[in-house]
Amino acid sequence: MSQELHDGFADWIALDWGTTHLRGWAMVGETVIGEIRSEAGMNALADRDAFEQALFEAIGPWVPIDDGARKLSVVACGMVGARQGWREASYLRVPTAPRGEARYVPTMLDFVDVAILPGVAQDDPPDVMRGEETQIAGLLAAEPDFEGLVCLPGTHTKWARIADGRIEAFRTAMTGELFDLLSTRSVLRHSVDPYWDEGLFAAAVVEGAAAPETLPVALFGIRAGQLLEGAIAGECRARLSGLLIGAELAAIASLREGVAAVRIIGAPALADHYAKALGALGQGAILHDGAETTRAGLLAAYREIGRCF
Amino acid sequence: MSQELHDGFADWIALDWGTTHLRGWAMVGETVIGEIRSEAGMNALADRDAFEQALFEAIGPWVPIDDGARKLSVVACGMVGARQGWREASYLRVPTAPRGEARYVPTMLDFVDVAILPGVAQDDPPDVMRGEETQIAGLLAAEPDFEGLVCLPGTHTKWARIADGRIEAFRTAMTGELFDLLSTRSVLRHSVDPYWDEGLFAAAVVEGAAAPETLPVALFGIRAGQLLEGAIAGECRARLSGLLIGAELAAIASLREGVAAVRIIGAPALADHYAKALGALGQGAILHDGAETTRAGLLAAYREIGRCF
Repeated sequence: MSQELHDGFADWIALDWGTTHLRGWAMVGETVIGEIRSEAGMNALADRDAFEQALFEAIGPWVPIDDGARKLSVVACGMVGARQGWREASYLRVPTAPRGEARYVPTMLDFVDVAILPGVAQDDPPDVMRGEETQIAGLLAAEPDFEGLVCLPGTHTKWARIADGRIEAFRTAMTGELFDLLSTRSVLRHSVDPYWDEGLFAAAVVEGAAAPETLPVALFGIRAGQLLEGAIAGECRARLSGLLIGAELAAIASLREGVAAVRIIGAPALADHYAKALGALGQGAILHDGAETTRAGLLAAYREIGRCF
Repeated sequence: MSQELHDGFADWIALDWGTTHLRGWAMVGETVIGEIRSEAGMNALADRDAFEQALFEAIGPWVPIDDGARKLSVVACGMVGARQGWREASYLRVPTAPRGEARYVPTMLDFVDVAILPGVAQDDPPDVMRGEETQIAGLLAAEPDFEGLVCLPGTHTKWARIADGRIEAFRTAMTGELFDLLSTRSVLRHSVDPYWDEGLFAAAVVEGAAAPETLPVALFGIRAGQLLEGAIAGECRARLSGLLIGAELAAIASLREGVAAVRIIGAPALADHYAKALGALGQGAILHDGAETTRAGLLAAYREIGRCF
């Protein structure tokens, strides 16, 4: 865990508490005065006490020292609100505003108030998100009239159609997880070197999107092509990523329809990767920094629910 | 390693030497007098000496005790002939008979002659097989006039069009490996219980084959559906397998076209699984035992090349 300390007292703590990581910011209003990063994600925490302990360790430096006269508000989004998380924050159902009633969590720490934001679910076809809705809320806080398609790339990439300030529909692709498994644990691990070729990536996106039904055999073709023809450095990695993202773009074609520029919210390198994939299919993209957008969504929630603490 | 011993001396040894396993039979002509099974597959063997040592351990009980007056012939197929195997046996190129010139391997063991059978490669689209061609040779030894489609299910399932005694074209799907990775290492591992529902499997095959382009989002839908709707025992496992095999059947649709009954060569349970998937799409299947068919292919090779030892 690392904590970056600044002078001053925090009013509140913004937390993005996911499956594998806890990331957060000590805030005075909308100003960041400190940052928190730890590996204490949901998967690393055995029970509710462990969540409370992890929270205490994360926010320790910003705990007020005035004997409880002033409380520190904590607003958290992500898997912390899942059934296997700290306390379940029930899903909102699409179509829905990306922000709903928070779940308040009782703790032994009498100097903090903790609120966990709900995720969003879709019944048909079934889909769920936790954390991404808060990023969408952050985007809408800056641009309340935004309508269109938002892409939130990650281990499980979300694609959400937004209109009238609401999430209307969304889908999740396991592309990031598939790429990791295939490139490190499948027979393709022998073919994937650390290099990267942008041109081959773009070509593979086009190929994957044009013939997504061939993906099951195209994947082994990467290995076979390397054995038979050799492969230049970066070819197989770029081809694997391109075929998978191309197939993903075909799978969400109905959400992409008629969208001039997709909003991509994510870590800059990953967002850029998806922007290039969309570009290969002639679709534009506007990038938003994932951490900033999360913070903006948590700030909007804090402003609305702060008075309830 | 287990060796099942019988009376009598072996003329030759039939070996199916793959990535993770070594399986074989001590033979007198076409009669099996002993069986070999070990974990000494290619991946477990560090160098050429290790292959020789593994062979010696496997065939020890059948080594002639007549001071080299009589040699034991070993005929092997599979990954043992790969570049990372014992000795590379160059690929035959489609269209080709499934059997070609063997690679003879010099050993320190002066009482054995070792021949490794070549695999088969296809340049466009690139694809490779090692071991399955010998099973196809076994099928053709019994039915020289067979024409049609052969399915060889496994970690990497092969589909081969046969005509005029030759492999005309083939494709490989990584379905088995994808199922293993997704059900044990991805987020879906939380959803896949040990049970199985045949009806849901068949329905998922139909769905996967009808809309293979949705696979990237349908996979996460298994997890989301379980979270939102619960799932009956066996539902998620059957759905994951069905969607993947359905997508595979769509990917090789051009090979399947016009085929009344696909020949499936494999372990009985897995062969039956693919037969049910084909059945869900209204296509028939005729099953062949994988081990028997491998042995028949190795026997055909032994008969042809035995005189060259």
